[in-house]
Amino acid sequence: MPSVQDAAAQISADVKKDLRDSWAALGSDKTNNGVALMSTLFNDCPETVAYFKRLGDIKQGKNNDKLRGHSITLMYALQNFVDHLDSPADLICVVEKFAVNHINRKISAAEFGKINGPMKKVLASLNFGDRYANAWAKLVAVVQAAL
Amino acid sequence: MPSVQDAAAQISADVKKDLRDSWAALGSDKTNNGVALMSTLFNDCPETVAYFKRLGDIKQGKNNDKLRGHSITLMYALQNFVDHLDSPADLICVVEKFAVNHINRKISAAEFGKINGPMKKVLASLNFGDRYANAWAKLVAVVQAAL
Repeated sequence: MPSVQDAAAQISADVKKDLRDSWAALGSDKTNNGVALMSTLFNDCPETVAYFKRLGDIKQGKNNDKLRGHSITLMYALQNFVDHLDSPADLICVVEKFAVNHINRKISAAEFGKINGPMKKVLASLNFGDRYANAWAKLVAVVQAAL
Repeated sequence: MPSVQDAAAQISADVKKDLRDSWAALGSDKTNNGVALMSTLFNDCPETVAYFKRLGDIKQGKNNDKLRGHSITLMYALQNFVDHLDSPADLICVVEKFAVNHINRKISAAEFGKINGPMKKVLASLNFGDRYANAWAKLVAVVQAAL
């Protein structure tokens, strides 16, 4: 596992552009895209559901207030990351804050990385292909390095 | 303590306007205003420092990466709240998500309410007076109702 600094250094200018271009679409509907991301995770990686018992019946999608609240809040974490791409020191400090609760919940880097497949699908639903999914995987790798 | 629904119902159109007008200034520099908010809390209510041992030496201000990461992330939580003022159901679900970690850390409604004084000072530093501090206290009351 690289250090969080090494992982952040992989976010090149091209990667930043791909993150920002796709975030313009992804972040424009935080509720639906956030719930789609979490629901795809639960569907494709059902073993992750055990980490989210607090949310109750996740099959209700955005009608589940706890799932919706979690999903929207996740999207604001991504907004926070995207807003700080040009300042590695700030990106790292907000990623490390984000990591705290995941560490407390014993979510490993490997577990967290399971978000990459669902993210690829949600991006594809917005017509952003593999190049964009690869950019998001590099941002996810910064979080993984902090776990 | 009112229900979270009752507290959210206190956010009138005038209160929303005051929140948005002051957020335009407050949220435009999330790092400095966020750190000012937390540092004022620690200074004015030193008993709250015990809840933030994780942050280490808080006297370093924004040079403390953990304090800066916490402060910036707090500001994105406020952004999330302000963005959902027109949808009480969404405001409540994101406030309740925000409350989860505070409940886990055993921060009571009374403890959380200590942010109102520091918020008043930070707003005053941006030339927003008591009317705006009162609007923020109404938003803080929604969080308090969820604790």
